[in-house]
Parts: sequence; structure tokens; C-alpha cells
Amino acid sequence: MTNKSKSYKILGRLWIKGEKGTFLGHGRIILLEKIDEYGSISEAAKALDMSYKHAWDLIKFMNNEAKLPVVVTTKGGKGGGGAKVTDYGKKCIMYYWQLQKRFEEFLKKETEIFNE
Amino acid sequence: MTNKSKSYKILGRLWIKGEKGTFLGHGRIILLEKIDEYGSISEAAKALDMSYKHAWDLIKFMNNEAKLPVVVTTKGGKGGGGAKVTDYGKKCIMYYWQLQKRFEEFLKKETEIFNE
Repeated sequence: MTNKSKSYKILGRLWIKGEKGTFLGHGRIILLEKIDEYGSISEAAKALDMSYKHAWDLIKFMNNEAKLPVVVTTKGGKGGGGAKVTDYGKKCIMYYWQLQKRFEEFLKKETEIFNE
Repeated sequence: MTNKSKSYKILGRLWIKGEKGTFLGHGRIILLEKIDEYGSISEAAKALDMSYKHAWDLIKFMNNEAKLPVVVTTKGGKGGGGAKVTDYGKKCIMYYWQLQKRFEEFLKKETEIFNE
């Protein structure tokens, strides 16, 4: 009676918790990447269909949890200043995708075990 | 300037997707365990502060996604019949906790790497 044709997939989600809550997770990494792309928090927020306030809150939270700031802002100049992902922030992005890749390998292996 | 004293924890969540949606996940496994404990869907639902309808929907969904039913119900008798987790359902519970253990090992190892 076993329906052998059914197949399954193990899926999952990871995040990195700091002292007070989530330091890095999928959405935060995407936000950092967009800030790196646009050099602006408001442009990044717009691209992600997120309010400026929410983006700014996430950045403040990440900067507080991080060993070093992940984003710095510059005041004044054309367009009222910009934002820059720091070298440390870029390291976090890189690290996150490496972690994600190892996680995907874990999920793939577990999916094979489950479907055996 | 690096605040070396900060420490982080990699956390995560896993679930097993069938053809139409989640087949097994943390909440569903807990539900199966409670049904096994009480021999009754309504008692299990009550213990989990879940409506009977929601519990029943989850079971129907799991039974549809599973290769074999995970729960069978018996009609009539004292108290209007009961529910039983099948051997296959018990295998699913056992498998899930084994998977969860391997996942926790993965998270522990990754947490060590991240905090290095």
C-alpha cells in the first residue's frame, strides 16, 4: 500500500542571534546588499518595498549587535548624504552566503536520506 | 575597537515538504506525540491549546502527504472512539528527532565557526 512515488524535500531557515535578538538573517543580508548596491538606505528600502523607518531600525539593530558597524552613513552633500556597507558588513554578507551554502548541502543530503 | 566579548548563536528551523505543502514540522510532530499519548485527537488538541478543527485538518493533510497514514481513527465505543498513531507515524516521529539532532550538531559547529 505504500505509495513509493511520493517524494519529499527537507527545507529550512537559518538566522544568527546576537545578545538581544536576530543579528543577521535572510532579509537583513538582502538589505545590506541593496545598500551596497545603491549607496543609500532610502533607495535600498524602496527597492525592497520596505519603509525607510523599518530599514533604518534594522540597520541600527545590526550595528548594535555587531562587533563593528555594518553600515555607516555620511551626512550632507548631494541628496543629503548616503550610506555605505563597511568592510566588516561585507564580510558578514560573504560569511552568510557561505553558511547558507553549507546549509543547503546539509538539506540536500538529508533530503536524499529521507527519500531513500 | 572590536568588541570581542560579543557572542552569537546560529539558530534555525527545519520542515519536510510534501507534494502540496508541509508534511512534517515541529508543531505537527508535537501533535502526533500528543495523540500517541492521549489516544484522542480532541484531548491532544486541548493539551496543545489548538482547536479540534485545526488538529484534524493537520492530520488529514499529513495523511494525504504521507506514504502511509500517520494517524487512524476508530469509531464508536466508549467516548465515541479514539485515534491512534500508526507504526509509520511513529517512524516519522523518530526520524524527525534524529534529523533535528543532526541539525543541532550542524548549528553547534557553525556557531563555533562564527564565534572564532
